[in-house]
Amino acid sequence: MIYDTIIIGKGPAGISAAVYLVRSGRSVLVLGKDAGALERAESIENYYGFPENVSGAELALRGIAQAERLGVTVLSEEILHLGMDDVWSVKTTEGLYSTKTILIATGKSRTSINVPGFEQYRGKGISFCVTCDGFFYRGKKLALLGAGSYAANEYSELLAFSEDITVFTNGAEITGSFPKNASIVTEKITAFTGEDSVSAITTAEGTVHAIQGVFVALGTAGAASFAATVGVELSGTDIVIDAQHMTNIPGVFAAGDCTGGFLQIAKAVSDGAHAAKGINSYLKNIS
Amino acid sequence: MIYDTIIIGKGPAGISAAVYLVRSGRSVLVLGKDAGALERAESIENYYGFPENVSGAELALRGIAQAERLGVTVLSEEILHLGMDDVWSVKTTEGLYSTKTILIATGKSRTSINVPGFEQYRGKGISFCVTCDGFFYRGKKLALLGAGSYAANEYSELLAFSEDITVFTNGAEITGSFPKNASIVTEKITAFTGEDSVSAITTAEGTVHAIQGVFVALGTAGAASFAATVGVELSGTDIVIDAQHMTNIPGVFAAGDCTGGFLQIAKAVSDGAHAAKGINSYLKNIS
Repeated sequence: MIYDTIIIGKGPAGISAAVYLVRSGRSVLVLGKDAGALERAESIENYYGFPENVSGAELALRGIAQAERLGVTVLSEEILHLGMDDVWSVKTTEGLYSTKTILIATGKSRTSINVPGFEQYRGKGISFCVTCDGFFYRGKKLALLGAGSYAANEYSELLAFSEDITVFTNGAEITGSFPKNASIVTEKITAFTGEDSVSAITTAEGTVHAIQGVFVALGTAGAASFAATVGVELSGTDIVIDAQHMTNIPGVFAAGDCTGGFLQIAKAVSDGAHAAKGINSYLKNIS
Repeated sequence: MIYDTIIIGKGPAGISAAVYLVRSGRSVLVLGKDAGALERAESIENYYGFPENVSGAELALRGIAQAERLGVTVLSEEILHLGMDDVWSVKTTEGLYSTKTILIATGKSRTSINVPGFEQYRGKGISFCVTCDGFFYRGKKLALLGAGSYAANEYSELLAFSEDITVFTNGAEITGSFPKNASIVTEKITAFTGEDSVSAITTAEGTVHAIQGVFVALGTAGAASFAATVGVELSGTDIVIDAQHMTNIPGVFAAGDCTGGFLQIAKAVSDGAHAAKGINSYLKNIS
C-alpha cells in the first residue's frame, strides 16, 4: 500500500500530526525508535492539562495509545534511508514502505560526546553526515563513531568513499550489522587531537589512532541526516520550513524540535497540528 | 500588590502562559468568567496526551488545577475595564488589580445571534464596541444587545453618547446591574430591518422598535473590546502580535484564538508558552 503520510518520529510533534491526519481520513504510519528527548524527561509540569506531574515516558505512551486508538499504525523501527521514485520510499531496519508525503519529526538528536577536542574539531574533520560530506574524504583513513543500526548504515554508505574505516564504539556494545571484516575499537575515547583539523583519536588504553576524518553516527539518524539525504534545506541543524510546515522539497514536511525554535512539548504538539493541516492541503492538491 | 502579569482568560492559552510564568518566579493572576469555547467542547480527541476522550469542561478544570497547584491565583471575575497609569489597572466585577503586563487570552467571543438581518447590517449600524464606535452615535436612538455585567458596563459607557438607549435581552434574564430607569425589552428578537443601515428591531410579539444604531454586548467582553479600550491594533477581529506575542502596546500581550490562526487547543497552549517567554523578556528589560 501507499500511505498518505509516513511520520518519522513518535514524540509529541509526530503523534500530534498523526492524530490530526487520521481524523481527516488519511492513512498514516508512524516510525520511530523512541520518543526522543521526551522519554528522558523525569517530570513535566508545564504541559497544559496535567494537574499532577507526568513523566515524559508516560506522556509518550499516552500519546502513542491515543494515536493507535484512532487507527494510526505506530512501529518501533529505525529509519535507514529515504528515497524518491514515483512516491517516497522509506527503508527501515525491518522493511520498506511507500508514501505520498513524509513528515520529519525526529526531535533534536544527540550529536556530540563529551570528550576533549570533540567540539574543537567539529566541522574541522568531524562530520555528522556521510551523504553530505563523504565525498570530501575520498580514499582517506576514516573513523566512524557509533555502534547501532544507524552507524552500520552510515558505514556501508561510507564504503563508497573509502575502504579504510575504523568503527569506534566509545564503550558501547555493537548492535548494528557491520561487515565481518570491519575494524572495530570498543575502548572509550579519551581525546581528539590534531592541528588545523582532527588527525588522531586517543582511546582509554592510551592508544593513539591516526585518522584523517571522523563521521559521527551516534544514536539514531538525526533530522539533519534525513534532510541531507533528500536535499532538504537546513539552517544550522534546524530544518527550514514554510508556513505550511513544508520544507523546500515538495511533499516533505517537518515539525517539532527538529525545526528549531522553542524546544517545548507545547510547541511540538502545535507544530504537529499545523503540519497535519499543511499535509492535508498538499494531499488535496496532488489528488 | 502589583502583579508581574494579569492574564485575561482561563482557557488553554491563558493557563499555559500562567504555568510557564509562575515557574519563572513571576506573580500571576488569572481572571476569567469561563474557559470559553473549550467548555462547550463535548469530547476532545486531538489534543496530545489523552488516550481516552476528554471533555472540554474537564480539560479546563485540569488546567486550572495545574496552575493553582503551582501557585497561580485564578479568579472567576469578569473584566470591565483596562487602564494605564504608572502600571496597568484591571477593573473587574469584584475589584481593581494592578499589573506590569497584561496577557489577553480571551478566545473568540460570541459576537453574533442567528436572526434575519443581523449579518446584513453588521458594520451598517450594528457595532460591537462602544469605545470604538460610540462617538458616531451621539444623540441617536440606540439598542444595546445583552443582559449581563458586560452589557451593563457597555450601557454605562454608552450613556456618554446618548441617553436614549433600549436594552434588548433577546429572551435572556437580566443579570448585570443596569440603572433602575433603564428601558428593557426581554422578548426574543425576530428580525433586524432597515435600508442602507439598520433602522428597526422586531421582537417576538411583532412589535417593531425603531432604532438608529445597535451595540452588541452578548456574553463577556471579547478581545476586540479590550483591544479597542487600550488602543491595541486589530486585523479584523484578531489581535495583531509580534514574534514575542506582544501587541503594538508595550506590555500588552495576546495569545490563543483571539490572535487568529488555527483555532485549536494545541495552538493556544503553544501560544501561551511563547507569550510567557515574551513576557519574561519584557519584564527583565523593564526591571
